[in-house]
Amino acid sequence: MDQTFITILGFVAAFFTTFALLPQGLRAIKTKHTKDLSLPMIIMMEVGIILWLVYGIIIADMPLIFANGIGTIFATINLIMKLRYG
Amino acid sequence: MDQTFITILGFVAAFFTTFALLPQGLRAIKTKHTKDLSLPMIIMMEVGIILWLVYGIIIADMPLIFANGIGTIFATINLIMKLRYG
Repeated sequence: MDQTFITILGFVAAFFTTFALLPQGLRAIKTKHTKDLSLPMIIMMEVGIILWLVYGIIIADMPLIFANGIGTIFATINLIMKLRYG
Repeated sequence: MDQTFITILGFVAAFFTTFALLPQGLRAIKTKHTKDLSLPMIIMMEVGIILWLVYGIIIADMPLIFANGIGTIFATINLIMKLRYG
């Protein structure tokens, strides 16, 4: 299969999983309501994304660093909202 | 840095981001309440994880296939719950 297609597919996949937490964070900021959000989900997501970031830094992989750097910000917003609104 | 340590770090990161959606799905099943969940978040997560799975199948990467195969199931459970309970 064409290498360019495969690379683009990887980037599109990374875009979706990285930016998925953005609308969730925005919703929480807007509604000030996070009761249905699972705290273990947010904590596991935060820990996992930070570990991916560390992994990316160690193996010096720019897409991993970039995606999980942004992802860490989004996950942190969700965590702060959940801790604030319960 | 030790290669074994780096590989284990990657697997631990994959474990956390893959299994994060499990407690969220279980909470939705238990409470029958998903109002605070963002539908765009769940759809983006579902699409992204399926694209990662396709990417893993194309490049024949077992950890990617395994993690995102399980992740697809968890994301689908969350999507069904959100569509069901609104």
